[in-house]
Amino acid sequence: MQRYFMELSYDGRGYHGWQVQPNGASVQGCVAGALSLLLRAETEVVGAGRTDAGVHAARMVAHFDSGEAFDPAWLAAKLNRLLPPDIAVQGIRRVREGAHARFDALSRTYQYHVATAKQPFLRDRAWRVAPGLDFGRMNEAAALLREYADFTSFSKLHTDVKTNNCRVTQAEWAQEGEAEWVFTIRADRFLRNMVRAVVGTLADVGRGRLDADGFRAVIEAKDRCRAGSSAPAHGLFLVDVEYPADIYIG
Amino acid sequence: MQRYFMELSYDGRGYHGWQVQPNGASVQGCVAGALSLLLRAETEVVGAGRTDAGVHAARMVAHFDSGEAFDPAWLAAKLNRLLPPDIAVQGIRRVREGAHARFDALSRTYQYHVATAKQPFLRDRAWRVAPGLDFGRMNEAAALLREYADFTSFSKLHTDVKTNNCRVTQAEWAQEGEAEWVFTIRADRFLRNMVRAVVGTLADVGRGRLDADGFRAVIEAKDRCRAGSSAPAHGLFLVDVEYPADIYIG
Repeated sequence: MQRYFMELSYDGRGYHGWQVQPNGASVQGCVAGALSLLLRAETEVVGAGRTDAGVHAARMVAHFDSGEAFDPAWLAAKLNRLLPPDIAVQGIRRVREGAHARFDALSRTYQYHVATAKQPFLRDRAWRVAPGLDFGRMNEAAALLREYADFTSFSKLHTDVKTNNCRVTQAEWAQEGEAEWVFTIRADRFLRNMVRAVVGTLADVGRGRLDADGFRAVIEAKDRCRAGSSAPAHGLFLVDVEYPADIYIG
Repeated sequence: MQRYFMELSYDGRGYHGWQVQPNGASVQGCVAGALSLLLRAETEVVGAGRTDAGVHAARMVAHFDSGEAFDPAWLAAKLNRLLPPDIAVQGIRRVREGAHARFDALSRTYQYHVATAKQPFLRDRAWRVAPGLDFGRMNEAAALLREYADFTSFSKLHTDVKTNNCRVTQAEWAQEGEAEWVFTIRADRFLRNMVRAVVGTLADVGRGRLDADGFRAVIEAKDRCRAGSSAPAHGLFLVDVEYPADIYIG
């Protein structure tokens, strides 16, 4: 058996998230189905993480195994013809034995898009907010995320993870168009719902409901009830997953 | 009566084009309806041009008249709440008496988006082409458009315009992402279907079916049957309409 990493992008609107669900289409399910058909063997697909319902991916990485000999570029082209238009395979690469899309990831990067005016082309891919958010103050508060490790305040309750610690290495807002702002956050790992809860709470800072000290107090409380409400799913994109360079072979 | 220019953007997917149609929704119809409701008077809206069914606009300009006194920013906000999510008003400005959105336009600029790989986020806004188009050669041919005035070869047949002459001042392809190319064309005026016919014919050049001399021969033939087939509507955006600066007042 040879292990492969595949890079995927998808528009999350039509899916109940990455992970296979008992009711409703999932990206993982679609990809595993197409792969199993083309490789003529039931093939499991393991993603770098799970994106929630409605969340997009510009670059998701997933691994699978196959005993068949094939040209990765040929398989990627075949998959793209078989998969629906809102899921695309960007590439397939051989990786070393035991390489794991989830456990070997060094970091994940998410971006959250906010539209500060009505914009027809962003309506499915950015959170439309009332004008007047103070992104300078939001950046000041966002910088605090890098000082802390425990993000219990931004985690979904009752999840089964052993620790709520994450190492955030980037967290900043940047203006992209006249009326579009993008929040980029990178960390070794993320808790469920974390980015959307962080963005929702930063929006409270931008509206003046909370200042940087208040934001710090929310983090330090380690209490989900102290954070703001979650920003909607359709503004969120998984944009990168980083691996050690020597994981790829050939 | 005071005349106003409004700037609009719209996602053309849901509309039978800009112009009011007997059957099917039009952008002009939606905007005129909302304006008439808010201004409590039947209000006509005249666009800088007509975009065909499925064509988008990042910036369309249209004029209307009103005898009511109102703050343009207030009216724009009201319109944005009333109009569907795929049509947005970017701004409203007072213009001098007799200013005409169509007749006073100095130039129109269109962009045509092409995707050279499967891309979920471009599927509604770019023409997906087979890989291998030679954009260098397409640029060489595109440059020829600036040497000619009569574009009969790229016009819809049997239209009622008096002349098929246009002054093309820009026509070039530029790479935008890893797998996205954008054709920008600016002219004083465009014939119906002209940009899509030009793009379809340039794609023939990119595929090697036609060389620059062949493209020149197509232009010189002044015969629609010589040009390639039209590129699909969903890749085309009206991106700008230019007016003399002194048309605006206040």
